Amino acid sequence: MEKNRNISMAVIKRLPKYYRYLEELMRNDIDRISSKELGEKIGFTASQIRQDLNCFGDFGQQGYGYNVKELYSQIGSILGLNRGYEAALVGAGNIGQAVSNYSRFENFGVKITTIFDANPKLIGMKIRNVEIMDIDDMAPILNEHKIDIGIICVPTKNAQSVADELIKGGVRAIWNFAPVDLVVPDYVKVENVHLSESLMTLIYLLNESDN
Amino acid sequence: MEKNRNISMAVIKRLPKYYRYLEELMRNDIDRISSKELGEKIGFTASQIRQDLNCFGDFGQQGYGYNVKELYSQIGSILGLNRGYEAALVGAGNIGQAVSNYSRFENFGVKITTIFDANPKLIGMKIRNVEIMDIDDMAPILNEHKIDIGIICVPTKNAQSVADELIKGGVRAIWNFAPVDLVVPDYVKVENVHLSESLMTLIYLLNESDN
Repeated sequence: MEKNRNISMAVIKRLPKYYRYLEELMRNDIDRISSKELGEKIGFTASQIRQDLNCFGDFGQQGYGYNVKELYSQIGSILGLNRGYEAALVGAGNIGQAVSNYSRFENFGVKITTIFDANPKLIGMKIRNVEIMDIDDMAPILNEHKIDIGIICVPTKNAQSVADELIKGGVRAIWNFAPVDLVVPDYVKVENVHLSESLMTLIYLLNESDN
Repeated sequence: MEKNRNISMAVIKRLPKYYRYLEELMRNDIDRISSKELGEKIGFTASQIRQDLNCFGDFGQQGYGYNVKELYSQIGSILGLNRGYEAALVGAGNIGQAVSNYSRFENFGVKITTIFDANPKLIGMKIRNVEIMDIDDMAPILNEHKIDIGIICVPTKNAQSVADELIKGGVRAIWNFAPVDLVVPDYVKVENVHLSESLMTLIYLLNESDN
């Protein structure tokens, strides 16, 4: 599949949503769907959907619509879910443990193969068969593995130094749960999950509607 | 403080970021900051910052800049962090436990006062002194409390019915961790944390940069 470069982040952010809805259609044994029907389900217009998907290739057929299973697999492959990436998770506290325990991420081809923490009580414990290792041993262990993705679940004050070390260890993508904007080289991709900001946004909307 | 309505979601989403940076400045004992310096820290332009803050009132002083502590407290009050909201969390699995354990949310005036789960092994356990109750008893318990925010951490297939019941129980805002777009009445505010979509976006960016 030829890749069309310069695809906007807005389109990219919608792809996982398509993927999720197509998965649901498959679960409900729906074989095909028109862009109009798909749009109604997701809350986009039919033309938006056609436009988005056209960025990546020629999907669907006039008068037939989309073959659900095929489109699901094609979007999965556009997303790179079939690539098989290895991840290191740093910080096995509450959020870190929740993320480590979430087996669904393996469906996306992401496997957490190393977990680090600084807490002696946690070091040596296992989460889904992966041993929690001492954060002080991170550099040599990262060098032994070929880690693609670093997952940062440490407190704010340690997040940047952990990111620096992960990148030194070869990581090219960071999934960041710490409430901080990491400074990274251009080639390193960062996706933030800022729970506090999300909750604050909700509080704002609630407070505003109360007034 | 008079509220300016029709503030765009983009501005609203930036407020928690301002709040976070101001908190950091306070931690570092910085008393005042110009919009230019604040902009450089956050990565916005000075005029963007002035424009955003002007939506809410008259902050800062020509030639002096912003009083950090004052602006922090003002943004906190614009966000409604001083209102004191009660939350019910449904689904005490991995993510639910992580969220329940996250004491920082209390700084935003949000207190989780009730937790529900369907798993008999979890019912009766306590998280930060709040007992996990049977999800089947949710309706009467919600009626006893005045719950503002519902936090949904249940599996996808149960998320909509849990949302419906929370709303029936008086909830006006939902923080949704289930990978599903909830259907709610207009007056109910929803903020989604879709971890899978966030990870898929990261995988896409990583995969794209590999090609």
